[in-house]
Amino acid sequence: MSFTNPIIAAGLARLTALFSERAVTPVEVCAAYLSRIDRLDPALGAYVAVDKDHAIAASHESALRWAKGEALSPIDGAPIAVKANIAIEGLPWTGGIGAYRDRLAQEDASVVRKLREAGAIILGAVNMEEGAFGATTDNPWFGRTHNPWRADVSAGGSSGGSAAAVAAGLCAAALGSDTLGSVRIPSAFCGIFGLKPTQGLISLDGVIPMSWTLDHVGVHGRSAEDCALLLAAACGAEAELAAEIAKPADLDDLIDAPLAVLRPGDLPLDAMGRAALDAAVARARLLGIEVEEVSLNGYDFQEAYRLGVLISGAESLAEHADRLAESVEGFSEGYRARMALGGEVKAYQLAGAYRKLAGLAEAAREALGAYQGLILPTTPAQAFTFAAGQPVDIALYTTLANVVGLPAMSVPVGMAGEGAGALPGAVQVVAWDDETALGLGKALSEPVDAPTAFRG
Amino acid sequence: MSFTNPIIAAGLARLTALFSERAVTPVEVCAAYLSRIDRLDPALGAYVAVDKDHAIAASHESALRWAKGEALSPIDGAPIAVKANIAIEGLPWTGGIGAYRDRLAQEDASVVRKLREAGAIILGAVNMEEGAFGATTDNPWFGRTHNPWRADVSAGGSSGGSAAAVAAGLCAAALGSDTLGSVRIPSAFCGIFGLKPTQGLISLDGVIPMSWTLDHVGVHGRSAEDCALLLAAACGAEAELAAEIAKPADLDDLIDAPLAVLRPGDLPLDAMGRAALDAAVARARLLGIEVEEVSLNGYDFQEAYRLGVLISGAESLAEHADRLAESVEGFSEGYRARMALGGEVKAYQLAGAYRKLAGLAEAAREALGAYQGLILPTTPAQAFTFAAGQPVDIALYTTLANVVGLPAMSVPVGMAGEGAGALPGAVQVVAWDDETALGLGKALSEPVDAPTAFRG
Repeated sequence: MSFTNPIIAAGLARLTALFSERAVTPVEVCAAYLSRIDRLDPALGAYVAVDKDHAIAASHESALRWAKGEALSPIDGAPIAVKANIAIEGLPWTGGIGAYRDRLAQEDASVVRKLREAGAIILGAVNMEEGAFGATTDNPWFGRTHNPWRADVSAGGSSGGSAAAVAAGLCAAALGSDTLGSVRIPSAFCGIFGLKPTQGLISLDGVIPMSWTLDHVGVHGRSAEDCALLLAAACGAEAELAAEIAKPADLDDLIDAPLAVLRPGDLPLDAMGRAALDAAVARARLLGIEVEEVSLNGYDFQEAYRLGVLISGAESLAEHADRLAESVEGFSEGYRARMALGGEVKAYQLAGAYRKLAGLAEAAREALGAYQGLILPTTPAQAFTFAAGQPVDIALYTTLANVVGLPAMSVPVGMAGEGAGALPGAVQVVAWDDETALGLGKALSEPVDAPTAFRG
Repeated sequence: MSFTNPIIAAGLARLTALFSERAVTPVEVCAAYLSRIDRLDPALGAYVAVDKDHAIAASHESALRWAKGEALSPIDGAPIAVKANIAIEGLPWTGGIGAYRDRLAQEDASVVRKLREAGAIILGAVNMEEGAFGATTDNPWFGRTHNPWRADVSAGGSSGGSAAAVAAGLCAAALGSDTLGSVRIPSAFCGIFGLKPTQGLISLDGVIPMSWTLDHVGVHGRSAEDCALLLAAACGAEAELAAEIAKPADLDDLIDAPLAVLRPGDLPLDAMGRAALDAAVARARLLGIEVEEVSLNGYDFQEAYRLGVLISGAESLAEHADRLAESVEGFSEGYRARMALGGEVKAYQLAGAYRKLAGLAEAAREALGAYQGLILPTTPAQAFTFAAGQPVDIALYTTLANVVGLPAMSVPVGMAGEGAGALPGAVQVVAWDDETALGLGKALSEPVDAPTAFRG
């Protein structure tokens, strides 16, 4: 993504070179991002809290480390945004829920601590769908996050603030969370890269659960390399593993094994999604990767999505039941309606749902066994306008990776449409390990330019 | 356990020597057991189906293998009883439930197939509590299994038929299943050894679930060695691992690390249970094993049991909901009442229950981290009469091992009481691996004689 300011254009991965060459200091980078947030975020609505003083202080410490050649990691000094359900010490830890508006995090979430240990600058908390339960990020308590490409269009969700901030150049990269697709959907809508890593790779300690059996912390970046670097820091891997994760797999490693593609068949997919899928398959074949159509017959996308929503409703309600009893007015009617299923459905039906979903996961893993990975759509339809509202089947294709626990990334595949109506296209790749997902994402993507309104 | 007939007295482990020395053939052994079943089982009520023709035919094949020096395993030719919720091809596969009375298993459960591959002779199916949900084995559809020590006393449950058949010498060893204690409780009541192995070690394929998140297939034997041998065959381990499992850990390996003991404190435990616990601790110290009292403060026994019962209710109801809708009269009122919780409680409460139980498991594992294992009671009170009925807290001490997934064995610790009123005492050992559990069980047990009525 090309921004006028080379500091912003550097994203995350290329900052390292700038710092080590002393082309720029972390203090300058932090100041540039904070100034952009001041100038551009009021119209975008990505941030809900900016930790200016802490960020500036941390950037000075980072600058001293780089000056002494003692940088803590390749992301030392990089300004990162954090989704509002992930605890940042001293900032409101809300999960986008009104009832928790006045709750300040007593300590950092595990993943935030790991980022700070790597030297990252935490800029602040970004907006999200209430309780992470939805994909619009038109939050009744904290406002609307606009899509950087078109203000009347949703940035997606639930990590809408994270994706919008990355796409608009208001952070170098961002943390999100993904239960049924919440990192990948807004990444697709905003034209950036969004990785939901292997289940459990990034700790969920200090993250408000939507569904603790399906939740993942994920990363948003302007390139596969940016995602890889943030992931390596976020999972707190030891040096050797981090170095492995920090670099997407090489093309040489990707042409060895066949890759599967899921054609929508009876499932919904708009023309833009079909074009993006075709483009990614064509690109894979051009690179020498064998691509085969796969039918995930044992995996019922509609049923898995339905079960995922039921389980999320039950676990969200279990998480918030006490607070709901005290302060029902701190939860919007829409959010309460999404959780209500967990109070209507009986225990034995939920038990059956867990079992059925585990069976679907097993079938999907078996069907994918012969392949290095899978290309499939990220969403059934392109980004929707706030006026139109979220389609019901928005997470149909993303739920798969949460259910099977495998890493999945949404990657941009050029722009669709002309002029002011243009929006980024996207596809999703699923793989058996994070390096391969990152490598496939890098190889098959077609990065897009920065959104016009945010280039300068 | 001393039986007049040396074939019966040999149990499982010592049969191998008899076969290889040609002191006896599998045909004679099978005939001896079938004849005892004919003679003694009508008063005991352990078997619900005997597969006489198959057993005799299989014993002939085994005899040929031993004659040619081609025995398939150390248990080739050993007659084994199988709990009625584990599928045996061609026999009724009922789980002790009336609704499934006429259902014949189309194929063997995975564990039965593995036993047959090891050459074991499957004698038939043994009685159990309806749906495995209880500890009395006074089955409304298939009759009452008496305790071989006293006919007015329950054999325990839910694997009451398995434990009674082993104690009465009506099989060399038996398979049971254990969700909250169903292998260990009847083993304790009948004076034998009963091991619930590491979760997942024996496949649950072809076993009617009570709770698929807590269920384990387990083994009943007249010694720790018998349990070890049956476990090695039942988990289908490759030769090397099987040899390791097939032998309880040596005393030399057990004196290296401290062992924990749980004193009941505020939890219920009768005088016999206290005496058994003291005896096991004294024996451990005599052997040179350091024993320390541990307080499992983070693990609430009552709460874990309550949650286990709730989860079992929900999962049992999920398993049988369709059949219940078709044929409510095929389920007893008492069994339906146990499952009813799963229809009364809401989905979100069950979600919370799973999470809470996982938290308790984590706390227990942490508290046990410094020890090689734990000695604790098997049950709060000794075997109950049918007239008195099952006490509500029967599985208070056994649920722990299902929740944490670690292997646990109930072992006999001599007799308590005099003459016709005497009943076996027992303690439970939990360890981090099956070999250690078996080794501790062997070292700390005090085996009892055969029940008087079944010696001849």
